[in-house]
Amino acid sequence: MYYFTQVVNKTFEEASALITEALKTEGFGILTEIDAQAAFKKKLNQDFRRYLILGACHPRIAYQMLQLDDKAGTLYPCNVVVQEHEDGTVEVSAINPEAMFHHLQNDKAKEIAHHASQLMQSVMEKFTQAAQQESPVLVNS
Amino acid sequence: MYYFTQVVNKTFEEASALITEALKTEGFGILTEIDAQAAFKKKLNQDFRRYLILGACHPRIAYQMLQLDDKAGTLYPCNVVVQEHEDGTVEVSAINPEAMFHHLQNDKAKEIAHHASQLMQSVMEKFTQAAQQESPVLVNS
Repeated sequence: MYYFTQVVNKTFEEASALITEALKTEGFGILTEIDAQAAFKKKLNQDFRRYLILGACHPRIAYQMLQLDDKAGTLYPCNVVVQEHEDGTVEVSAINPEAMFHHLQNDKAKEIAHHASQLMQSVMEKFTQAAQQESPVLVNS
Repeated sequence: MYYFTQVVNKTFEEASALITEALKTEGFGILTEIDAQAAFKKKLNQDFRRYLILGACHPRIAYQMLQLDDKAGTLYPCNVVVQEHEDGTVEVSAINPEAMFHHLQNDKAKEIAHHASQLMQSVMEKFTQAAQQESPVLVNS
């Protein structure tokens, strides 16, 4: 599977805050944000559900990868999608870096991609745990 | 190959402007910009060459793709990298959308990815032609 995904019993805003926090604990910062709902409205005048694409980057991994393949930036950053389905459920899906970087043939690059995948799985586990807590979770912005 | 690439006899700024213009002629807008040089300096205090990641999006294609696979956004946008190598040469590399979306098994998605690849190849051809012109090229911002 090219992604890791989790449906959560949280609002769109809560899920966005929790996944951002979980990414941070594993060293990923958010470099870009694409509001697909707003973009489709503006560019195509089409209504779309809430769909946020967070571009996450682990600077040290990104730096190592670029030393090995100077075109690797065409695959950056590691995206995490927060979406609200038609029935109101909220789902968070993160790219599996190992799938994304499978084009890089270099053995060292494969090793780094594998490490990045483990980190992203850990991010998703931490996010899922936080989202399962009954009480409201305080998230530092 | 997971990307299309071209070394050009232009400055970094000229190449960035020309590829942005070529993307526009094929319907791609720039949604995100990552200045990797600045990011590595800020996050790791590491010097890096000039390396710009432009996140290009073809709204209609993106919209069609999301109807077929609601996780496709983990693969957006289509990146174009403008980089200046150590020897001063400037290279522009665009992701091959067909390689990027190869994880999507749906036949219709494969067809759309193929179409996106053709568009990106056309972008690179137009960019290369424009970059080969002897006279300065005026680019509307």
